[in-house]
Amino acid sequence: YKYMNNNIITIAREFGSGGRELGRKLAERLGYDFIDKEVIYEIMKETEFSEEYVRKTLRGAQKVPYLGDMLFYQPRLEVLNAQRDTVLKLAERGGCVIVGRCADFILKDAGRDPYRIFVYADMDYRMSRCRRKNKLDPQLTDKDMKKVIQKIDKMRADYFEQFSFMKWGSRENYELSINTTGQSIDEMADRLAAFLK
Amino acid sequence: YKYMNNNIITIAREFGSGGRELGRKLAERLGYDFIDKEVIYEIMKETEFSEEYVRKTLRGAQKVPYLGDMLFYQPRLEVLNAQRDTVLKLAERGGCVIVGRCADFILKDAGRDPYRIFVYADMDYRMSRCRRKNKLDPQLTDKDMKKVIQKIDKMRADYFEQFSFMKWGSRENYELSINTTGQSIDEMADRLAAFLK
Repeated sequence: YKYMNNNIITIAREFGSGGRELGRKLAERLGYDFIDKEVIYEIMKETEFSEEYVRKTLRGAQKVPYLGDMLFYQPRLEVLNAQRDTVLKLAERGGCVIVGRCADFILKDAGRDPYRIFVYADMDYRMSRCRRKNKLDPQLTDKDMKKVIQKIDKMRADYFEQFSFMKWGSRENYELSINTTGQSIDEMADRLAAFLK
Repeated sequence: YKYMNNNIITIAREFGSGGRELGRKLAERLGYDFIDKEVIYEIMKETEFSEEYVRKTLRGAQKVPYLGDMLFYQPRLEVLNAQRDTVLKLAERGGCVIVGRCADFILKDAGRDPYRIFVYADMDYRMSRCRRKNKLDPQLTDKDMKKVIQKIDKMRADYFEQFSFMKWGSRENYELSINTTGQSIDEMADRLAAFLK
């Protein structure tokens, strides 16, 4: 019996909840690899697709107002398959935290039994965190910022659901769901590392 | 800054998930009081309602097939109010784990900032746990046992929703949601205590 079967942790997160930062800090605490955009670069290196093609495909057709160079996904099967293969390959090593990329579904589906975490927070907290971290255009009104955050979450949900036919954020798809509202991400990473050790 | 403001932990749980056992063991680990049916006995002692009246009211009108002497709720305002007062009174001491009783909502609503945990598991795991622990009539077929479990969860959800006008089990109402599928409750209690310390 082992709580984490392959020392593979996946993190899905609401935009602005601090899930990415939590993943990075958790990886530091546990001495694990942190996998994020790296996946995309791995795809680029290991497939026949040109970097330009992958970027263009993954950056996608959906336009989000006020957003700069963030990545969004317009799923194209051959690139998604390459991404899937890359996630599986990266996870083979074990000892990693993977943020986003549907890695939770991909690894579970492949029988790799990832430890799946969902990170979320109240909208007010996420908005104030986005302002503090300068994650979105600071000129945005609260109302517009809320719309952008909801739109990004919607895209993440759609992407996950197209890929997995399951509901993004729904508890049965995770081992643990963590509310970061009002919390220090540093402290959460410490606590989570203590929980998982 | 303190992660748990008042050292009050509440646990809501799907039937058969091991949430009650987890709460009891977590309270042991942390040296906290464990509060459960005790709440009802406290009501009896501290209100004008007779023990018989409270029992009759809380045992409720809804009949669940195959179940013996479990408690179900037929909300009556004066008893619910007395229960609310008792939860608040018990929580005043701090250092407690309270299972069920809408304590999460009651305490949050009263500004006591409880640390709210939701415990859940896959149906198959809950069914096998109910058989192992002899929680339901062992003569039940799997199909009937599933129905009973769903019915009990429905009653818990209805009770919570009537009380709080919020959705039972929905992540925004909790700090942490824990999936116990296939897990040792003992180990989960250890991990959770490490997380909360």
